[in-house]
Amino acid sequence: MTATLGATKMNPASPDVPALLARCREQVTPALKAAVARLDTASREQAEFHFGWVELDGSPGRGGGKAVRPALAVLSAAAAGASEESGIAGAVAVELVHNFSLLHDDLMDGDTERRHRPTVWSRWGAPSAILCGDAMLALATESLLEDSSPHAAQAARLIATTTRELIRGQAEDVAFERRADVGVDECLSMAAGKTGSLLATSAAIGAVLAGAPEHTVRGLQEYGMGVGMAFQLVDDLLGIWGDPAVTGKPVLSDLRSRKKSLPVTFSVQRGGAAGRELATWLARSGDQSEEELRRAATLVEQGGGREWAAAEARRQMDSAERALTGAGLADGPRAELAALGHYLTDREF
Amino acid sequence: MTATLGATKMNPASPDVPALLARCREQVTPALKAAVARLDTASREQAEFHFGWVELDGSPGRGGGKAVRPALAVLSAAAAGASEESGIAGAVAVELVHNFSLLHDDLMDGDTERRHRPTVWSRWGAPSAILCGDAMLALATESLLEDSSPHAAQAARLIATTTRELIRGQAEDVAFERRADVGVDECLSMAAGKTGSLLATSAAIGAVLAGAPEHTVRGLQEYGMGVGMAFQLVDDLLGIWGDPAVTGKPVLSDLRSRKKSLPVTFSVQRGGAAGRELATWLARSGDQSEEELRRAATLVEQGGGREWAAAEARRQMDSAERALTGAGLADGPRAELAALGHYLTDREF
Repeated sequence: MTATLGATKMNPASPDVPALLARCREQVTPALKAAVARLDTASREQAEFHFGWVELDGSPGRGGGKAVRPALAVLSAAAAGASEESGIAGAVAVELVHNFSLLHDDLMDGDTERRHRPTVWSRWGAPSAILCGDAMLALATESLLEDSSPHAAQAARLIATTTRELIRGQAEDVAFERRADVGVDECLSMAAGKTGSLLATSAAIGAVLAGAPEHTVRGLQEYGMGVGMAFQLVDDLLGIWGDPAVTGKPVLSDLRSRKKSLPVTFSVQRGGAAGRELATWLARSGDQSEEELRRAATLVEQGGGREWAAAEARRQMDSAERALTGAGLADGPRAELAALGHYLTDREF
Repeated sequence: MTATLGATKMNPASPDVPALLARCREQVTPALKAAVARLDTASREQAEFHFGWVELDGSPGRGGGKAVRPALAVLSAAAAGASEESGIAGAVAVELVHNFSLLHDDLMDGDTERRHRPTVWSRWGAPSAILCGDAMLALATESLLEDSSPHAAQAARLIATTTRELIRGQAEDVAFERRADVGVDECLSMAAGKTGSLLATSAAIGAVLAGAPEHTVRGLQEYGMGVGMAFQLVDDLLGIWGDPAVTGKPVLSDLRSRKKSLPVTFSVQRGGAAGRELATWLARSGDQSEEELRRAATLVEQGGGREWAAAEARRQMDSAERALTGAGLADGPRAELAALGHYLTDREF
């Protein structure tokens, strides 16, 4: 069985998303680089490597990620009727917050590589990763409050609240790993904090800076939250059933690491006999054969976790679409935001 | 030889500083507790223990520190002619930033105890200390931006800049430990970041919230910076020559840990033959006898580091006093700020 959200439900005549992302990246990168250049010498060196702008030998970098959050930020300014440029300070802030959290996450998770390059803590040590992340978080607020928008303080407050939501999600993620009785609602709330909150804020911060009315801001936040939740659900499906050639992760990787992902949690909690067997398997430690991992995947499926996660992802994307339609946005940017949402979630699972 | 800054120079008819600190603490603690109560469940539990409000068994806490920074913040509002209450949001923010940095510092330094109680990382693990610190930093901005002062955004911007200065100092401190050629000016600049910057901001943030004129804010910042630098210099003197019964640290503790403190750095850089011998000693590793540590202390003294640090501390306090006098402040709060500065730096060294 393979499916996609887009194939079953939504596939409008789409703007060219890779070109759209490239255009937004081009707009935001100079401001982001200027902000990062203000960091202390050590943090700056680490951040410029982390962002993919330079390599360890000083040569030009092989580039960074897709920069989805900055793109959402500038598009949200345009969607609210302002210029894309007016969203740039928000784009810089959300990208700094995202990367602050990556630096600290890589350290907490002990990950030595990100995108096939060493992580900051593995190259410069744990204290450097802590300090560089801290500095990026402070810089996010600082650069936003320097923006000329009369709504910059409101945007900075949103960034602070969002950062705490992000941390709540991460703290729950840490706590859940030690618990066997995590409920589906708790797990959804964790994902809303860890993945949804910053995407929601990214999709709204440009509109906040533009002084958009409350219902527009709220609609954009709901859109970003729906896309974020759908993204996480699809990501969790791919973590079990994804094609290693596409995901770049080992086959059945989330089962290998005993991750309490959303489909797993659903089956454990609501999957009857299959769920109970799955719970027993999760509680056993040690590496297990691929045959056993395949058996666990079958238990998740028999417990209904696969079907539920796919349906929930579709429901989240439907809700995101509705929020976008009802937010009173300019047509062009709204279509671009919609296309970006599909692009993020429309993967084969 | 023992001396104090106060005995040699300044000892005005002082307000009762412990009573002053208690009064300010009483004013600020309810708002600080209300802010901390908004943290996610895990971070809240850890923060409430860290602040000394509860013990590990859930019993009432044995209390926390002196809360110098919040006291400076409320006094600075009063010094600018506003109510002490109007400085409370600033007091909460500086105390949250201070404690964010303690949580991350304890982890980076591997310290298992603070004030004879376990540190957050040693009790709850490194990820918790990272996340709890991150959440406190975000909360500092958030709570400040919720204040009703029309100058809250300016205060939040100051907090963000200060946080980056603090991190710069900490990053330099980490980097200097690996270098043998750290200069006196570099070391002073590191101390200005690590110790001075947040005291400078604490002494000014109440005035910022009160909308005080530029020269008043600047005078208060210079005051706080001078006190912070004097405090660090005296602390470094006590780290070598302090009485263990008073400091609570082992005798010659900073030499034991080969700390490149300010007096040590001065002697290494400018202490002639004694400095060169000291540099050679510092480069040798391993525990050394108390006799050897005493010999190293003599080398710091012969290199001029002890005399220089004491003179520099006096110079910093003189400059702090001048800044306070010229800042156009209300008399009562100015005397209280001055007394608080003496209290912090007037220790036997």
